[in-house]
Amino acid sequence: MTYKQIIALDAMGGDFGPSVIIPAAAAALARSDKTKFLIFGDEKMVSPILDQYEDLKQHAELRHTDKAISSKEKPSAALRNSKGSSMRMAIEAVKDGEAHGVVSAGNTGALMVMAKLILKCLPGIARPAIASVFPAEKGKTVMLDLGANLTCNAEVLTQFAVLGAVYARVVQGIPSPKVGLLNVGTEEMKGHDEVREAAEILSQVEFPGSYYGFIEGNDITKGTVDVVVTDGFTGNVALKTAEGVGKLSKMYLTDAFKSSPLAMLGYMLSKKAIDAMKEKVDPRKYNGGMFLGLNGVCVKSHGGSDDVATESAILIAIDLVKNGFNDRVSAEIEDLMEQETFISVVGV
Amino acid sequence: MTYKQIIALDAMGGDFGPSVIIPAAAAALARSDKTKFLIFGDEKMVSPILDQYEDLKQHAELRHTDKAISSKEKPSAALRNSKGSSMRMAIEAVKDGEAHGVVSAGNTGALMVMAKLILKCLPGIARPAIASVFPAEKGKTVMLDLGANLTCNAEVLTQFAVLGAVYARVVQGIPSPKVGLLNVGTEEMKGHDEVREAAEILSQVEFPGSYYGFIEGNDITKGTVDVVVTDGFTGNVALKTAEGVGKLSKMYLTDAFKSSPLAMLGYMLSKKAIDAMKEKVDPRKYNGGMFLGLNGVCVKSHGGSDDVATESAILIAIDLVKNGFNDRVSAEIEDLMEQETFISVVGV
Repeated sequence: MTYKQIIALDAMGGDFGPSVIIPAAAAALARSDKTKFLIFGDEKMVSPILDQYEDLKQHAELRHTDKAISSKEKPSAALRNSKGSSMRMAIEAVKDGEAHGVVSAGNTGALMVMAKLILKCLPGIARPAIASVFPAEKGKTVMLDLGANLTCNAEVLTQFAVLGAVYARVVQGIPSPKVGLLNVGTEEMKGHDEVREAAEILSQVEFPGSYYGFIEGNDITKGTVDVVVTDGFTGNVALKTAEGVGKLSKMYLTDAFKSSPLAMLGYMLSKKAIDAMKEKVDPRKYNGGMFLGLNGVCVKSHGGSDDVATESAILIAIDLVKNGFNDRVSAEIEDLMEQETFISVVGV
Repeated sequence: MTYKQIIALDAMGGDFGPSVIIPAAAAALARSDKTKFLIFGDEKMVSPILDQYEDLKQHAELRHTDKAISSKEKPSAALRNSKGSSMRMAIEAVKDGEAHGVVSAGNTGALMVMAKLILKCLPGIARPAIASVFPAEKGKTVMLDLGANLTCNAEVLTQFAVLGAVYARVVQGIPSPKVGLLNVGTEEMKGHDEVREAAEILSQVEFPGSYYGFIEGNDITKGTVDVVVTDGFTGNVALKTAEGVGKLSKMYLTDAFKSSPLAMLGYMLSKKAIDAMKEKVDPRKYNGGMFLGLNGVCVKSHGGSDDVATESAILIAIDLVKNGFNDRVSAEIEDLMEQETFISVVGV
């Protein structure tokens, strides 16, 4: 059988290791076509679980290693001791052309440092970004960077705009994605130099999306644009603030339903609808931080992910590979670099 | 009668002008003691409304002007043409010692520029910050800066920590408020230089709160700390992201209840509890951006505020005056400047 998507899995990453990663891979396999997994991890732990999933076993190869990266280690220390670890071997499989993409729920910093070092950036891309998809009032929003680059100059922000726009186009199927720059106001004179300079570039160059302008924090969930571009510091704070508010809302709702017998009865009657709503915003459905801009697909699954969440992350990696995301990015970046306006403004 | 709090009101600011500001002042008066209002605005518009509130009329003085600052004007242009406007006259009343504080729902940028120019910063304070209070899982959180200063050096962040801590202590009555610096992780080596430098200072100096360490976006609503300190760019994005997620959650909940007759019945039964919850997180209860660090109290009410929201903003101003916030800040800043660690690290 010819496989279209070969995904390397770091089976030892995350809080639960193979006990969630293997079932998640089996579920993802069932929902995709022509996919194969290279599974890196401790045979003694992985094999017994893998044996329970006949179909996955048919489309997977287990590569043994008893070494794993600790989630507590600093990225630099993790990197030094990474040889032969499940995370590193999974990344190397992508580099060696054995796999198209890698998924890990391990140490985020270590994964980023290792992926950058081993896979390298796509030609023309200065720095990779972490991107994720968010639910919005209308449609969905992809936001980047979520923490890989704390500060970003205008050129880097412009490249993120391209990465996000290509994602929205080829993976989400939006013909001309609207791209917005996250700022503190929508007027031209607002914001940092970097963001104003990026606005100037984006309004002049041709890229696979259409530049919408500045947007504000509330636009992320409003669905004003398809792609939100920001530096990694701001993006990370926005992401985690959103998570916090979501959690608080859920807590308030639970408290309200528990506050009286009548409210509890009300909950029981509306339970089906409330559960459907909860499912719609279930963070597990949105799990998977994409490291975009690397020479190979790399997706980070949240460390505390269960099998449902891990499945989402694996499916994201499969989707990126299936839609030829990286080839498309390379072509678009090449186009961008050739545009005189881009060169004159950025001064490459 | 001796008034303890004299508040200058820009009656012409905001989307609804005196039609919400006068009723809000009447409501705030009923909930406070020994308060007087100086009302600046167009007599023809204000008087007929004021006439409906006998008690307020007894404790208010109307100062006529038919000039008002437009909400659309750029701050610099607004400032040039500000002489004799209701906003400027209200601020000047504070400067002249006629009032202790000012509340306006007008043009935010213009209010900030004018307040800075006319009131000046408290001695030792480099820049004023915008602060607001947020609901949290445990207690409430005050966060600053929310947009007055897009970038902040370590010294400025340290001063914000003092402003926030004094607020939590004297207004919220928390004996030793926990202060956190907003960052992308809790490890020491994370984040911008500015935030790491501020952390170093705060862990060494004595100030009216206790330094907790770095916090992340989700800690804002978790209530990990009493005071969240950040630069104006990050704070503004976090604030608006939170607003957006709150709105999205509300929309999903409404949709869920409307999705079936059974869910609707469930809603009717739990309506009282749901409404109580909505009231608890009602953004109108949290309306009022405090411009902290100025020589005088200045509170910005949201432009679209109704009378309930405007009342909150007026009560915030009254509270700041009543608790002698500014005197206390001055004393604490003086203390801070005298500490050798502060001087050696910051290099003042």
